Amino acid sequence: MYNGNIMDLLGTELPIVQSPMAGIQDSALTIAVSEAGGLGSLACGMLSLEKIISEIRLIKEATDKPYNLNFFCHEMADYKEKQHLKWQEKLKPYFDELGIEVESGPNSANRMPFNHDIADAIETFNPEFISFHFGLPDKILLERIKTWGTKIVSSATTVQEALWLESQGVDGIIAQGLEAGGHRGMFLSDDISTQIGVSALVPQIANKVKTPIIAAGGIGDSRGVQAALVLGASAVQIGTAYLLCSDAKTSRLHRSAIKNFKSQHTALTNVFSGRPARSIVNRAMKELGYMNPLAPTFPHASIEMTQLRGHAEKLNSDDFSPLWCGQNTSGCKEISARELTLLLASKC
Amino acid sequence: MYNGNIMDLLGTELPIVQSPMAGIQDSALTIAVSEAGGLGSLACGMLSLEKIISEIRLIKEATDKPYNLNFFCHEMADYKEKQHLKWQEKLKPYFDELGIEVESGPNSANRMPFNHDIADAIETFNPEFISFHFGLPDKILLERIKTWGTKIVSSATTVQEALWLESQGVDGIIAQGLEAGGHRGMFLSDDISTQIGVSALVPQIANKVKTPIIAAGGIGDSRGVQAALVLGASAVQIGTAYLLCSDAKTSRLHRSAIKNFKSQHTALTNVFSGRPARSIVNRAMKELGYMNPLAPTFPHASIEMTQLRGHAEKLNSDDFSPLWCGQNTSGCKEISARELTLLLASKC
Repeated sequence: MYNGNIMDLLGTELPIVQSPMAGIQDSALTIAVSEAGGLGSLACGMLSLEKIISEIRLIKEATDKPYNLNFFCHEMADYKEKQHLKWQEKLKPYFDELGIEVESGPNSANRMPFNHDIADAIETFNPEFISFHFGLPDKILLERIKTWGTKIVSSATTVQEALWLESQGVDGIIAQGLEAGGHRGMFLSDDISTQIGVSALVPQIANKVKTPIIAAGGIGDSRGVQAALVLGASAVQIGTAYLLCSDAKTSRLHRSAIKNFKSQHTALTNVFSGRPARSIVNRAMKELGYMNPLAPTFPHASIEMTQLRGHAEKLNSDDFSPLWCGQNTSGCKEISARELTLLLASKC
Repeated sequence: MYNGNIMDLLGTELPIVQSPMAGIQDSALTIAVSEAGGLGSLACGMLSLEKIISEIRLIKEATDKPYNLNFFCHEMADYKEKQHLKWQEKLKPYFDELGIEVESGPNSANRMPFNHDIADAIETFNPEFISFHFGLPDKILLERIKTWGTKIVSSATTVQEALWLESQGVDGIIAQGLEAGGHRGMFLSDDISTQIGVSALVPQIANKVKTPIIAAGGIGDSRGVQAALVLGASAVQIGTAYLLCSDAKTSRLHRSAIKNFKSQHTALTNVFSGRPARSIVNRAMKELGYMNPLAPTFPHASIEMTQLRGHAEKLNSDDFSPLWCGQNTSGCKEISARELTLLLASKC
């Protein structure tokens, strides 16, 4: 168990990290949370290099407080044509229904792992924090970041992953409970039954590591923040509660799904990206099965679904949209991210 | 949210309920926990009427503190021969391997729902508490119990189930998080993706009901107890942590599985009883698939598996044993249940 002062790690006033949410946020959310005293994050995994740089510039212009850059670090899989032909056959009825032709091609999946080009581009900004999802980048990249003095954190979904991250010298471990919305950070196993609730995960990790723990998953209000700290976490990472904030770029359809009672039912699904991620259950998930063995390898499964989504959303339908959301929507509020951050930390 | 004093409901000194654990305990555990100041439970779902009565007598002789009787209240399904023939075909390689013949028959599943015969037998004891699993018994039975002045609680695994239980006038709601070991109490849905972590479940239920909440699932130590109370629960129900206690009847093989690192991996499975329940992953679960669509209807799936288990256990193998266990084994201690209860409540 970590016995230091978490504020030494985070450099913030509040023990609140805003979860990076690719496709749902830009620097506006990062700035609002950092300015409020939390640690704002920028999800860079779906941004172009140019966009990453321009967003960081916006953050630096708006605040001198610490912020976090988040990257995926999966090993980029090859595009497998056979896999896609089968998947396209499975999805054909939907393409027919929407009256569109599938556009196939290996270059359209837009989730790139962290690499030296990105490192070259962000190095000059000397970022205080980088968080990774799906493990860590290779040793050379990792050592390179460490030379900047940047603090490195990553997600663990099991005790084994936490022990592995600690052995790699991370500065903090995000204990991502099963409740969390979006992609599971899992990287040592692909069996989703290994994924456990945050209140079982945090104490078991805390018993085994000395690295500070940032609890994530199912935390929606100040009671949740307090409970996570009691369990052995030094800080929390919160995403879902920010989804309705005015500073988030959550789409109208996504907001509407969250406000609807159906957000009580989320599930882990691979149909949107190829990796298990938690979304509000919608038509694509129900009809294809939450975890479909035909879904192409991450991130390529997004190629076809993004086409269906684009057309369906124009028709005001969320049938094919990834409605990322955690298991606890009771903290979602249509207020500013600043107000929400202060509310979440109100008993800290 | 409940604003009263939970001790008025429980009648105990400590906000700790011991989870009833059918097949793993008898009155010794109930007595130890109740005497320590918690609410000891007796799992009656797998006991004969005679055994229920003799166990209650043992409790009443040993303590005048409150105790809880737990019953299943599923609707008893018919034994479907066709279903069993298919399942037996699936299991045939195991029967062959153990060199035994399957004994088929409708009367060997030993999980009976609560009924008037049981009510007749326990009425004279005027039990303070009855907890149900799988919803509630029918209105007539429920009203009958209420006339005894007995307090009634049952498990909710979703907000919807909590609202339904409140509408039936229960005295307390056990919010059973996904982390919990043993059978899911789910009764309004059979889709296991609806099951959520305790830290997402408790605050969402607390926001909607006025009935006191007893949090269950993943709670293994005094930090977990405190965190659950912070989240909005008035008490906790703990099972897994008691599994290694000297007063529990946990088998040697089961104890050994819990102490082994493999207890880090549990999963929901229907192969032992026909209903989803959390067990340490063993050979039967791995090879049959955790949730096998061929598994006969609860409780009849236990008929064949119990035969395999009996023979395998004689050979010192837990391949076919239900190794009920929650997602957090860090609180399992080889001490007395009295000591454990006091440890769990040490910051209350």
